Amino acid sequence: MIVILKGNTTPESVDSLVGNLKSFGLDVHISRGNLHTVLGLIGDTGKIDIDQIKMLNFVEDVKRIQEPYKNANRKFHPDDSIIRVGDAQIGGKTMTVIAGPCSVESEEQIITVARAVKASGAQLLRGGAFKPRTSPYAFQGLREEGIKLLLKAKKDTGLPIVTEIMDLSQLELFNEVDVIQVGARNMQNFELLKQLGHTQKPILLKRGLANTYQELLMSAEYIMAFGNENVILCERGVRTFESYTRNTLDISAVPVLKKLSHLPVIVDPSHAVGIAEFVPPLAMAAISAGAAGLLIEVHNNPACARCDGMQSLTPEKFATLMRRLKKLETALLED
Amino acid sequence: MIVILKGNTTPESVDSLVGNLKSFGLDVHISRGNLHTVLGLIGDTGKIDIDQIKMLNFVEDVKRIQEPYKNANRKFHPDDSIIRVGDAQIGGKTMTVIAGPCSVESEEQIITVARAVKASGAQLLRGGAFKPRTSPYAFQGLREEGIKLLLKAKKDTGLPIVTEIMDLSQLELFNEVDVIQVGARNMQNFELLKQLGHTQKPILLKRGLANTYQELLMSAEYIMAFGNENVILCERGVRTFESYTRNTLDISAVPVLKKLSHLPVIVDPSHAVGIAEFVPPLAMAAISAGAAGLLIEVHNNPACARCDGMQSLTPEKFATLMRRLKKLETALLED
Amino acid sequence: MIVILKGNTTPESVDSLVGNLKSFGLDVHISRGNLHTVLGLIGDTGKIDIDQIKMLNFVEDVKRIQEPYKNANRKFHPDDSIIRVGDAQIGGKTMTVIAGPCSVESEEQIITVARAVKASGAQLLRGGAFKPRTSPYAFQGLREEGIKLLLKAKKDTGLPIVTEIMDLSQLELFNEVDVIQVGARNMQNFELLKQLGHTQKPILLKRGLANTYQELLMSAEYIMAFGNENVILCERGVRTFESYTRNTLDISAVPVLKKLSHLPVIVDPSHAVGIAEFVPPLAMAAISAGAAGLLIEVHNNPACARCDGMQSLTPEKFATLMRRLKKLETALLED
Amino acid sequence: MIVILKGNTTPESVDSLVGNLKSFGLDVHISRGNLHTVLGLIGDTGKIDIDQIKMLNFVEDVKRIQEPYKNANRKFHPDDSIIRVGDAQIGGKTMTVIAGPCSVESEEQIITVARAVKASGAQLLRGGAFKPRTSPYAFQGLREEGIKLLLKAKKDTGLPIVTEIMDLSQLELFNEVDVIQVGARNMQNFELLKQLGHTQKPILLKRGLANTYQELLMSAEYIMAFGNENVILCERGVRTFESYTRNTLDISAVPVLKKLSHLPVIVDPSHAVGIAEFVPPLAMAAISAGAAGLLIEVHNNPACARCDGMQSLTPEKFATLMRRLKKLETALLED
Repeated sequence: MIVILKGNTTPESVDSLVGNLKSFGLDVHISRGNLHTVLGLIGDTGKIDIDQIKMLNFVEDVKRIQEPYKNANRKFHPDDSIIRVGDAQIGGKTMTVIAGPCSVESEEQIITVARAVKASGAQLLRGGAFKPRTSPYAFQGLREEGIKLLLKAKKDTGLPIVTEIMDLSQLELFNEVDVIQVGARNMQNFELLKQLGHTQKPILLKRGLANTYQELLMSAEYIMAFGNENVILCERGVRTFESYTRNTLDISAVPVLKKLSHLPVIVDPSHAVGIAEFVPPLAMAAISAGAAGLLIEVHNNPACARCDGMQSLTPEKFATLMRRLKKLETALLED
Repeated sequence: MIVILKGNTTPESVDSLVGNLKSFGLDVHISRGNLHTVLGLIGDTGKIDIDQIKMLNFVEDVKRIQEPYKNANRKFHPDDSIIRVGDAQIGGKTMTVIAGPCSVESEEQIITVARAVKASGAQLLRGGAFKPRTSPYAFQGLREEGIKLLLKAKKDTGLPIVTEIMDLSQLELFNEVDVIQVGARNMQNFELLKQLGHTQKPILLKRGLANTYQELLMSAEYIMAFGNENVILCERGVRTFESYTRNTLDISAVPVLKKLSHLPVIVDPSHAVGIAEFVPPLAMAAISAGAAGLLIEVHNNPACARCDGMQSLTPEKFATLMRRLKKLETALLED
Repeated sequence: MIVILKGNTTPESVDSLVGNLKSFGLDVHISRGNLHTVLGLIGDTGKIDIDQIKMLNFVEDVKRIQEPYKNANRKFHPDDSIIRVGDAQIGGKTMTVIAGPCSVESEEQIITVARAVKASGAQLLRGGAFKPRTSPYAFQGLREEGIKLLLKAKKDTGLPIVTEIMDLSQLELFNEVDVIQVGARNMQNFELLKQLGHTQKPILLKRGLANTYQELLMSAEYIMAFGNENVILCERGVRTFESYTRNTLDISAVPVLKKLSHLPVIVDPSHAVGIAEFVPPLAMAAISAGAAGLLIEVHNNPACARCDGMQSLTPEKFATLMRRLKKLETALLED
Repeated sequence: MIVILKGNTTPESVDSLVGNLKSFGLDVHISRGNLHTVLGLIGDTGKIDIDQIKMLNFVEDVKRIQEPYKNANRKFHPDDSIIRVGDAQIGGKTMTVIAGPCSVESEEQIITVARAVKASGAQLLRGGAFKPRTSPYAFQGLREEGIKLLLKAKKDTGLPIVTEIMDLSQLELFNEVDVIQVGARNMQNFELLKQLGHTQKPILLKRGLANTYQELLMSAEYIMAFGNENVILCERGVRTFESYTRNTLDISAVPVLKKLSHLPVIVDPSHAVGIAEFVPPLAMAAISAGAAGLLIEVHNNPACARCDGMQSLTPEKFATLMRRLKKLETALLED
């Protein structure tokens, strides 16, 4: 971190600030010029509050040089992280596809879809048991029962399962769940993130609707700082002025997050765009941009899905997409 | 709700859809024209999922006529709701000011600030005990101890207290808290909202950074649907492309929310703009636009505040603002 | 401007960059520390392209200390600018209200409205002759004929007139127009701004839908750099995810722009919110936040207005608003 | 268009509105139900102002069924349009790459880059002569001289040229230019669009920073309505809260615009992301999403580029990207 002091700062002010900064365990290097004095801080500046230093009337500006996240930072962990889940892995050279219905509705439904997506090549099964719904009057998911049905589908197909947690109090129900999803609305539910940091479960962390890359990485840092390194980042669209699509898929998130972090980055085109016919081109784009995998909604009867039917692919369309994705992957790997 | 069918829809399709809609307990009125057939649905359409109906290939469009919220809706509750908290009330003809530091730091600090804001005319004391911070390495609040200190300040000054809950597991610590704040990041933490609906505590519900008016009202509806009618809506800025200010205060939220809902609407200019010198003009604007009150950060030593110092007013500047606000209020009431 | 070099920068690289910077006529002060070397640039850094310097591989960061605008900058012109237009002035202690229909439709219409708004206390008349419409099939304004009708209304009432230019080729038709408006869509039509800089006409410059404060000030700078100092800034709402209102009025723009610039700042609540019933509370808010004036749409028959009827006040509602605004102004001035 | 009337609308009101609508040359079909009366309008509803009808107190809602654009609409022109420019074509089965420097700086520079991009397989040469710059003090382009240099590069390489117009007054200088670019800031410069509609030049129309898909198509409609069908749509990033990248590339624009319109859709990843290292993955993503082509900045010496050096590829990196794009294209075409 660099602190730029105004030209007319008194030596007393400099000394006082330097002393204060050293009390945080930092080394402070002073560069004096005619025009400005510049302090270079060495050490762990993560605890320094930039805004507070900016408030001092002799401070011209403060500039963070290091990112405020360490565990998630590629600088300190140059190799890609690979998260292993059963036989699957997320983050390696080949893409991983997580597919399934938005919400678990019945044993028949989830097993039918699970078999179909497995047949097409999906490596993990997704399905919502606890559903965050804007309206208190909308279907809230089968909840505990939904998790039981997912576990039956896992037993039937061997696919590891991914499902969303909405509150800490539900955590004990997730013992046999393979990957715990934290939804966009909970990306900054910091108490939840802390507790997930105390487990060793892989966490699929979705970017919030209006959260920056850095905020997403800071939320990953919450989980990692408490001991759980198994975090998967997921871009699922941000909110913009454009209302034709449900959200706006920020495809640049893929290469940017991969540069900033070693964590695997996957993309959820279904929630991003919200309209089934646009899911395949966006899925193709995500893999071409370097995503480690995809999260795709598939439903055996989209028109009757209890939520988000509009964005679900039929098993047939999913199979076609998987064939195209595999060709694409081959072409990209040859390179 | 109105469902517009395409011109060439077969009678069988119409019958099937009508039957399906009636199974939700709705009356369906059919208007047949040369060009389109239009279904008018009467009854509680809150449970109908618009997106699912839109997916039917013979449906041209679906249009919700009624808002999806009932308890929060002014149409069914024309008079302004007034939330009483101790001697204070929020939502009546006169403005209510909630003031205090971003976070509780020490007994001396909170009592000093509490006395100062009371002397200037604030009716409630705010202070953060549990602090949502972007970084896991930043100060997370005094937590349980912070609530104890707030209660001491309440005892000392008689001011009712407002403080933020971050997770359901903290709820029992809030027994003596007068108003429970739900922060912007938790506006769609639906499990939390449901549980708060089972209390009778006044809930100060902040609008999320990228949430629409309707989503804010739906979150209020979550609380109200479970039995707690004491909800205060709070506009605190939304996220836009403009980065000079912390967020962009959406002043239109005040008259719009007042039109749509009977719940009191207050404004937090401190978090919205993030820079102390701009808080007074925005506070004045909020009251002129019809806000029922304000949430303002005041700190006895902003340059040393452990969070958000940049946006805190000193007690002196707060006193000046309160004098101007009272003159403004008088002028507006005369009208 | 401050350039922070990486710690391992060679003396040759430093010399080469310093030489390059001096060739722009800048003084360069070098501060050498153990950790970083920092260059402080003195002089007119407006021509330096930050991005290019950032590309050098030994540059850690570049930080602009001075704003890139000079003529519009309050630092070099501490007193408020006052723009005089006939008997009216914009930017003084008292508010100035510019009112009239969105578009000029007929002689009777514009004269009726002009008389009505004058009677209520408006100091200038607005009316669109050239209309920027999203659709090529929508009414495009009476164009040259519209300007003639505005001049008739000016003759009849004595009110100076404000109307929008859409292209340089129209400039000669604006000889007798008192204030030339540059609409939000043309805020960065730089060729137009340059030519307006060669006139001495007051220019009402509207902020673009997604333009920052700095970009607005840079567009003002375009006009001023070519010799025309008579620029009025206008906040008219920015585009966000909220679609209930037409745009989102950024009320913070008022105090922020007033801090950064000496130019008068007015607000157009009609275009910002797009719904007539919300115009009065937003107009009140704008004046309370410190705006120098308002731009308000008034139409004698909003339901038949050829554009933007939904956001126009009737003359009666405008009269009521003006009475309230004057009371408000009195209360604010007493202070 | 469908107009939904409130249940208690009097027959007189219905008659009056129907009469009014018929005066626009529309057929009006009336569907009377117990609950609502619904009017279905047949004919060219492009001239009907929805907002004005909504203002009538007996109107519940108005719903546009048809898109307000006709010439650009795929419904009336199911086949993809192909724009031919010299030997190149934009919109066919194979991708078209337009490459070159942000701005033309010298004869040597433009010819060097032109030869390099041609060698790598680019089909058209881009280069800015008139440069829209936020600051009046920044380099504004070589202007007329820049166009002359582009024509020399065209003569040298045979590549057709694409360059931006900023104002109508420049039009005569564009006689020998092959494709005229309308920049994002001028997307709603309607007078310019109209005049370009009177030429037969291919127009590369960039989406504005905060413009919707429909607004982009309406701007294309302006050009087409005046007789010029040769419009190429270009997605180049929209403005969001994320500031790490210059803008946010809206990759969904590709499949959505292709569904709505028959016009070719290309992508400019350079301006969208603003950082050279992220251009290749976004270019790959764009082609995978179905884009007809790319607009890519290439500069022989990015660190010395007079504008936008940060986002320019070197000729070497461009050559590598082109090799990867061709492999990708082959894999996609096999499908």
